[in-house]
Amino acid sequence: MFASAARAGDEDDSHSSRRHGGDFAPREVVHGAVLAAREYGIAVQLVGPVEAVEPELKKHDIKGLHVSIVPASEVVAMDEKPSRAIVKKKNSSIVVTTKQVADGLADGMVAAGSTGAASVAAQFGLGRIANVDRSAIACTMPTITPRRCIGIDFGANLECTAHQLWQFAHMGAIVFSAMYPVKEPRVGILNIGTEETKGNQLVQDAYKLLKADKNLNFIGFVEGRDYPMGKVDVVVTDGFTGNVSLKTAEGIAKMMEVMLRQEFLSSMQGKVAGILGKKAFEGLKRRVDHNEAGGALLVGVKGVCVIAHGGSKHTAIKNAIRVAKDMVAANIVQRIEDSFVSAKAGSVK
Amino acid sequence: MFASAARAGDEDDSHSSRRHGGDFAPREVVHGAVLAAREYGIAVQLVGPVEAVEPELKKHDIKGLHVSIVPASEVVAMDEKPSRAIVKKKNSSIVVTTKQVADGLADGMVAAGSTGAASVAAQFGLGRIANVDRSAIACTMPTITPRRCIGIDFGANLECTAHQLWQFAHMGAIVFSAMYPVKEPRVGILNIGTEETKGNQLVQDAYKLLKADKNLNFIGFVEGRDYPMGKVDVVVTDGFTGNVSLKTAEGIAKMMEVMLRQEFLSSMQGKVAGILGKKAFEGLKRRVDHNEAGGALLVGVKGVCVIAHGGSKHTAIKNAIRVAKDMVAANIVQRIEDSFVSAKAGSVK
Repeated sequence: MFASAARAGDEDDSHSSRRHGGDFAPREVVHGAVLAAREYGIAVQLVGPVEAVEPELKKHDIKGLHVSIVPASEVVAMDEKPSRAIVKKKNSSIVVTTKQVADGLADGMVAAGSTGAASVAAQFGLGRIANVDRSAIACTMPTITPRRCIGIDFGANLECTAHQLWQFAHMGAIVFSAMYPVKEPRVGILNIGTEETKGNQLVQDAYKLLKADKNLNFIGFVEGRDYPMGKVDVVVTDGFTGNVSLKTAEGIAKMMEVMLRQEFLSSMQGKVAGILGKKAFEGLKRRVDHNEAGGALLVGVKGVCVIAHGGSKHTAIKNAIRVAKDMVAANIVQRIEDSFVSAKAGSVK
Repeated sequence: MFASAARAGDEDDSHSSRRHGGDFAPREVVHGAVLAAREYGIAVQLVGPVEAVEPELKKHDIKGLHVSIVPASEVVAMDEKPSRAIVKKKNSSIVVTTKQVADGLADGMVAAGSTGAASVAAQFGLGRIANVDRSAIACTMPTITPRRCIGIDFGANLECTAHQLWQFAHMGAIVFSAMYPVKEPRVGILNIGTEETKGNQLVQDAYKLLKADKNLNFIGFVEGRDYPMGKVDVVVTDGFTGNVSLKTAEGIAKMMEVMLRQEFLSSMQGKVAGILGKKAFEGLKRRVDHNEAGGALLVGVKGVCVIAHGGSKHTAIKNAIRVAKDMVAANIVQRIEDSFVSAKAGSVK
């Protein structure tokens, strides 16, 4: 059973009105949940204000599907301080969703909207895995190869220690191995150059920790241009840098899409080429679109928590639920727990 | 007259052998300089080991062009600590190039290779403009609009204060106004969200300084995805974050290019579309290719210094020389000097 946070609200993309459940909740969240229930044959709970979720759900034919509503009357706004909002709003969709997982009433959760609120709620509600200092966001990013790479931390912790980056490296490698049949994923630290002397104190210190760790396949420093080219499997960084890199990647991908359209529409020959190349463009879009990736995994907490993009449409929600399902099946929480017990986290320094 | 740093070396793209002058010096640097001398009708000095530069220069027909060689026997390697290398290697191409500008023997300079070495050499050799705490790299980035935007600092200062970011904002705005007929460019601070509450201490503090400054058209926080979409003219950030964002942008643009090729070549219809769409692809490449942008401007020093990409080919070198020429013509150094005198830099806090 999977819980998904849905909430009432207008479909407004302006920043002031962004709230938990994402910019397009409840419509797109409900739609995505119904698709996931049908396609994957799993049970999905929609967490949110009944009066808003129910009418949306009625628009779909859910005969034979396991889709239910779990009431939650409050919402967390994008501009609220996450820690304060989570403590204050006990009946918010994100807090209730987390509780479903903590109480064993759901196997995993998906949340769209404020990454900060979701991450704080999951830490409070699910608790952190023993020996893990900080939970982190493991985000899958497109590459030119058939595999995506993992960026960690791509948004949860704005300031990090080298020790935390070392822990992120381990968690990222475990997630990568759960996604692909690769036992020793290539781990790199995101820096402004690949030379050993480059970078700030944080990456310099982290470099020493990762290099000394024989359980990691550490390939050294990598640059922002290396991961899209498939040169690294797990990109380790602090949450501020990672999130900027992630959003730059999204922005440039979107920019290229717009530019392609502009260029192809600028001549008759281009228009014909555009029609003939439709399949190729769709193939490209599938590979870079964040809606296809689904969502990022919050690792280090005692439960499967997938954080979807604030601008998630139904396909993104469906795919985020798929990621949660896959991670539950891969037993990701247990794997991290085992690793952090046996690796005696903290002993490497 | 423009000086350009050229050096001897193999064309080897591996990291260990990267040295000043760029990965493809001296061949591509010499080629680019000859093109610039011809196209712009300016005098160009090639700074580097005569025995390496001269044979390259002889391959070109430079009759009627003003291209000369200024000898410099040493080179700075990519993995050398810039500050140490600059002090030690008095006869390196980058130090000699800087001296040409400082002595008034060249109007501006272009350097490819180690950004750190170029930036340190320019600060030592040219000196900083009065009231400017730190020089910074102003990099032009592609957007979906006909204009590029400016990212500052995109690589010179790994750790910054809020006061420095505020100075970067002013210098970035001056450069943008020198490039385009825009008196009040939109200035934003790069952050992980647009809400006022988001971000680390640095961006929070910088936000207050920029908001209080009536001489800036400050639009608040922007995300990595906003600048490619043309939502901001000047993106202010620290050099670490900026450089990661810059290189992520480069990597994703390259990735999309590779993916497009892969997708178009995967079917016969796609291949035909690819041939018909050749012009559109070329148009796209022109807009995103760093070789077209030329180079980034090091602002805050008392001279025009353009830092070109380490992987610069001749077109990139030519365009970097064009940027230097334009910035000399726009009197950019004087403009920044005037602004930092009248604005009484440091008074806003």
